[in-house]
Amino acid sequence: MHIDHIGIAVKDLEAAIKTYEAILNTTCDKREIVISEKVETAFFQTGESKVELLGATGPDSVIAKYVDKKGEGLHHVAFEVDDIFKELQRLRDEGFTVLNEQPKNGADNKLVAFVHPKDNCGVLVELCQSLNN
Amino acid sequence: MHIDHIGIAVKDLEAAIKTYEAILNTTCDKREIVISEKVETAFFQTGESKVELLGATGPDSVIAKYVDKKGEGLHHVAFEVDDIFKELQRLRDEGFTVLNEQPKNGADNKLVAFVHPKDNCGVLVELCQSLNN
Repeated sequence: MHIDHIGIAVKDLEAAIKTYEAILNTTCDKREIVISEKVETAFFQTGESKVELLGATGPDSVIAKYVDKKGEGLHHVAFEVDDIFKELQRLRDEGFTVLNEQPKNGADNKLVAFVHPKDNCGVLVELCQSLNN
Repeated sequence: MHIDHIGIAVKDLEAAIKTYEAILNTTCDKREIVISEKVETAFFQTGESKVELLGATGPDSVIAKYVDKKGEGLHHVAFEVDDIFKELQRLRDEGFTVLNEQPKNGADNKLVAFVHPKDNCGVLVELCQSLNN
């Protein structure tokens, strides 16, 4: 298990990309719209992990609601696992509240599922498994 | 540059360590008190990056104030750099607000400095450089 990415909720994706290109001294690797989530993502590779900027594509996007309520900032951390089904069952058995009955298709060609922040010291934890392997 | 660690502010460090041992399916690698910051840290290695839990050692700790105001959750992201002095100057030249005039000694035998969240889409960014090299 390692950190696949950290997700950052932003108000203005274009401006945020410029900001993170400057901070990280690199260029954005990939942009992708996740239609089902009404989110546009922008990825920056930093070592084995990525920084993922998350911008809303509409006012009813979960990211728009998050930014309205809490402001911009760190939104979630995602851990890459080899077998997401097995890991989710392990976490359920440990008493964690998994927010997705089944993993779903996320950005970056991955299966993803989330664990409720209330069980993780306020941190929205994503598990993901690459579909490229 | 890569993600050295993500920092998570917690209310009860002992309970949080148990929680993250369960989530990450590993054991805590190291605990360390940073007296100057009134913070106790607990580290978990996950791939090349770490999860750092941050608990207050007193009511006037920056972490106690953070948790009182915002609740538990993701507190900062730290990027390891080869030359922190050079990177801080580069960021100042780019217009970022560096919170430390000079890097200071942080946990995990590192020199650390922070960039103001207002410049980074609400994210407190730490730069760090290992003193082991």
